[in-house]
Amino acid sequence: MKYGIALFPTKKLQDLANSFRMRYDSHYALIPPHITVKEPFEISDDNLPYITSKLRDIAKSSSPVEIDVYKVDTFSPQSNTIFFKIKEHETLSELYAKLHQEPFEENTKYKFIPHVTIGQDLSNDEVADVVGRLKMKKIEHHEVIDRMQLLYQLENGSWTVYETYRLGE
Amino acid sequence: MKYGIALFPTKKLQDLANSFRMRYDSHYALIPPHITVKEPFEISDDNLPYITSKLRDIAKSSSPVEIDVYKVDTFSPQSNTIFFKIKEHETLSELYAKLHQEPFEENTKYKFIPHVTIGQDLSNDEVADVVGRLKMKKIEHHEVIDRMQLLYQLENGSWTVYETYRLGE
Repeated sequence: MKYGIALFPTKKLQDLANSFRMRYDSHYALIPPHITVKEPFEISDDNLPYITSKLRDIAKSSSPVEIDVYKVDTFSPQSNTIFFKIKEHETLSELYAKLHQEPFEENTKYKFIPHVTIGQDLSNDEVADVVGRLKMKKIEHHEVIDRMQLLYQLENGSWTVYETYRLGE
Repeated sequence: MKYGIALFPTKKLQDLANSFRMRYDSHYALIPPHITVKEPFEISDDNLPYITSKLRDIAKSSSPVEIDVYKVDTFSPQSNTIFFKIKEHETLSELYAKLHQEPFEENTKYKFIPHVTIGQDLSNDEVADVVGRLKMKKIEHHEVIDRMQLLYQLENGSWTVYETYRLGE
C-alpha cells in the first residue's frame, strides 16, 4: 500500500492555505493542507509493524518542529506548484534526514524545500498571474508542530491517517 | 474548536464505501469513510490536554473493536442518510459508552446505531431508489479496528486528524 508522512499545521494556517487551495489546488479535496516530510512510498502489510515501530523511535528522538512561513513561491519552471515557503530550520531538516536513512530510502531526486502547497496543475499563465499577485501579500506565520502523521492513499487518490507520532516525548 | 471521534476501517472497506459516496454523499470530499463514535463537540484550547489524556486512558482500557458490516440501510424517514449497517458488538458499544460518560456529555438525542455513511443530502425519491437497489446487494465485511482518531473541523467543513489512539495497549 502507498504511504506518506506529513505534518499538519494548526487550523489557522490550514484555513489560510485552504482559502487559496479551493481555487488553485487540484488536490484540495484529497488531503488537508500539510508539509510533506516523506514522499509516497510503499509499505507491505508484513513490514508495517516494523516501519511503524521505527517511526515511533524517530518521533521520540526528534524535537517538535519550528515552522516559519515567510512568503509565497513556486517551483516554476520545474513544476507549476505554488506554495507557502517555510524557512529551513534544523528541527525540520533533522526530522527529514531521519526519514531518509536506513531503513528508509534516500531521496536522490529532490533537495528538501519545506512548503505547504496551495496550488498545482495550473497553466503557466495562471501560475505567473497567481504568484505575481500573492508575492505582494505579506504572509507571515510562526508555529511549532509537535506531531507527525503516517497516511495511506485510497483508490480515489485521497489520504487517510493511519497513525500519529508525537515528536520529542 | 470543534472535534469529533471516528474509527477509520481498512482501505478495502473505505474504497468500497467511496465507490458509493462519490455519487451519493455530499461529504465525500470532507472526510474519509468512517464510523463516528462521538458526534462533533467543542474542546477549548485550554482543555485539550486534559481531554486527550482522558482519551488515551479510554483507548488503553478498551479492546480493539469488532466490525461486521451486513447490509445497506437508511435512517429514512428520520433522515435521508444511507449507510453500511454494522452489527452491535460489545467492544464497540463499550467504547461508545466510555466516550459518553464523565467528563464527556451523554448523547440524549440518539441511540447509537453503528454505521459507515455512504449517502446523504439526497431527495426522498433518490433515497428510496438507491436503498432499494443496494438492499439487493450482498454486502458482508468483517474486520477488527485497533485505533480511534480525534479529528477537528476546518472552516471549509473538512476534518483533519489531530491524534490517533491505539485501542487496548
